[in-house]
Amino acid sequence: MTEETNHRATGQFTGVVPLDLVAREGGLSVMQGILDGRLPGAAMAKTLNFWLTAVEEGRIVFSGTPTADHLNPLGTIHGGWAATIMDSALACAVMTLLAPGEGYTTVEFKLNLTRPIMPDRGELACEGRVVHRGKTIATSEAYLRDGAGKLLAHGTETCAIFPIGNLKR
Amino acid sequence: MTEETNHRATGQFTGVVPLDLVAREGGLSVMQGILDGRLPGAAMAKTLNFWLTAVEEGRIVFSGTPTADHLNPLGTIHGGWAATIMDSALACAVMTLLAPGEGYTTVEFKLNLTRPIMPDRGELACEGRVVHRGKTIATSEAYLRDGAGKLLAHGTETCAIFPIGNLKR
Amino acid sequence: MTEETNHRATGQFTGVVPLDLVAREGGLSVMQGILDGRLPGAAMAKTLNFWLTAVEEGRIVFSGTPTADHLNPLGTIHGGWAATIMDSALACAVMTLLAPGEGYTTVEFKLNLTRPIMPDRGELACEGRVVHRGKTIATSEAYLRDGAGKLLAHGTETCAIFPIGNLKR
Amino acid sequence: MTEETNHRATGQFTGVVPLDLVAREGGLSVMQGILDGRLPGAAMAKTLNFWLTAVEEGRIVFSGTPTADHLNPLGTIHGGWAATIMDSALACAVMTLLAPGEGYTTVEFKLNLTRPIMPDRGELACEGRVVHRGKTIATSEAYLRDGAGKLLAHGTETCAIFPIGNLKR
Repeated sequence: MTEETNHRATGQFTGVVPLDLVAREGGLSVMQGILDGRLPGAAMAKTLNFWLTAVEEGRIVFSGTPTADHLNPLGTIHGGWAATIMDSALACAVMTLLAPGEGYTTVEFKLNLTRPIMPDRGELACEGRVVHRGKTIATSEAYLRDGAGKLLAHGTETCAIFPIGNLKR
Repeated sequence: MTEETNHRATGQFTGVVPLDLVAREGGLSVMQGILDGRLPGAAMAKTLNFWLTAVEEGRIVFSGTPTADHLNPLGTIHGGWAATIMDSALACAVMTLLAPGEGYTTVEFKLNLTRPIMPDRGELACEGRVVHRGKTIATSEAYLRDGAGKLLAHGTETCAIFPIGNLKR
Repeated sequence: MTEETNHRATGQFTGVVPLDLVAREGGLSVMQGILDGRLPGAAMAKTLNFWLTAVEEGRIVFSGTPTADHLNPLGTIHGGWAATIMDSALACAVMTLLAPGEGYTTVEFKLNLTRPIMPDRGELACEGRVVHRGKTIATSEAYLRDGAGKLLAHGTETCAIFPIGNLKR
Repeated sequence: MTEETNHRATGQFTGVVPLDLVAREGGLSVMQGILDGRLPGAAMAKTLNFWLTAVEEGRIVFSGTPTADHLNPLGTIHGGWAATIMDSALACAVMTLLAPGEGYTTVEFKLNLTRPIMPDRGELACEGRVVHRGKTIATSEAYLRDGAGKLLAHGTETCAIFPIGNLKR
């Protein structure tokens, strides 16, 4: 199954969501809109061949299959593939808890790569969950697993939350 | 300047380096071979449009320009782009200190994203340096900056080092 | 309740466990021995007024109450108190999975401090669980909560595992 | 040399700095006041036997000697000792850049322990430096070394900065 097939099968597409729409709808509605194909998802997700598979309050799942385009020179999938799907799950889990008028940004994340990702691992799933939602800081954790449930990576992230219109850090 | 132009201009290409060549040459020679276009670099680097610009003992620089393919839905460059070039610099810095017969793998990394990366930031440079080289564990740090020297991200990484032939963790 | 009372009530005491005993018994038996007062626990735990409250395969709980000795100059409990009880839970959870003949060391840990710890928070509990146990690398996660279940800190750790007798990194 | 001697020799003492004094003087002046013995330092620093040895804009050094009170059960100094002096250097480096009216709190930190700390390592020095100072987020890095310059630990931290009076996260 190719990337195109996957994205076409899900009905998801990529592009940019206007910030004022995020401000108006709030984070959960926007994430559900991306899942349903009403709003565009990340171009980066398409480039790395993963897509949204679940959205609820405080929880997100992305699924995807790394390809030959994502190899490092030693023949395994680049750690950056795991980092990108992990950051997506970690950040979007926080996004589901944003009220209308709130924006956010990733401050930091850390991940452990617990097993090498070989090109033939099949479709992988990355689940992100909010751990703490404060007024201006939120944290989340995520786990990347293969189809057999083997853990490939896990990590945590810190996001800063702010009123939209105040993007300066 | 497109990705193809950059990679063509540098003479660098992508593919997989056989593990027994790494075992025979050692890490510094392999990294210099990728820089010189004698050996293939990471397919992932091409996919994310960055390439090697400097290699020495314990130090690596990757440079690159994120494109529209690397956006997140909110219109900034995905944190995964920074994570991938950072992981490349952090890991390859360690690789330059591997003796013949040694292999390595990334155990974990953490990065702070200090400024949003907008699509028009131009060419960025990520410098990685080894902080500690032990017998079985090495650590490194890296800094991602734009052309004006503004810091966009920084982080640290842990790698495990082992005799090639013993890839099990 | 003072530190002395707590340690006396638990029957736990502090000191150093001979490495050859660790090599002979394995990690779970040693941790249970500390819990039961058969073997000495960490002097550092007594200094920071916390003690073991649960030990099982892959899971550890430390409980304790920070005191005026653990303040920072701004009147809250120093982040180092949380870091120390977290590192204890993160590392000892891994220790419970060490077979006879295996030793280990902490490679790195990262923690988020999600709420300030005020001196009157009462007794806190820190639960650590192993996330991944590989041959030479293990990872764990831990959560520090107050008596009402409010999350004060969470984090992850990487440990290196090696045959005892080979302590060089 | 004992802890008491050290603290007496430096003239530094411990206690709590009133928050309105921090608001009035700004961070650099307060840190210099602790160094000079005009204002109290952290009780936690005394408990762990370390003290301030240098303060300048964006840079802090703490020095200290772990003792038998800081051992873990396996006979090395507990990782929490390193974590505490590191967090102190990482956070106080940020504090030196706070303007009057600004407060701050540690959001997260990560450290690598690169060598075991044996009880006879002598006096250790931990240098913290600000890496990024934004409007509401600052990051720092620190390095813990023994008297011979051997690196024992290194790490990074994220702090949140806010107007004093707004302590809720």
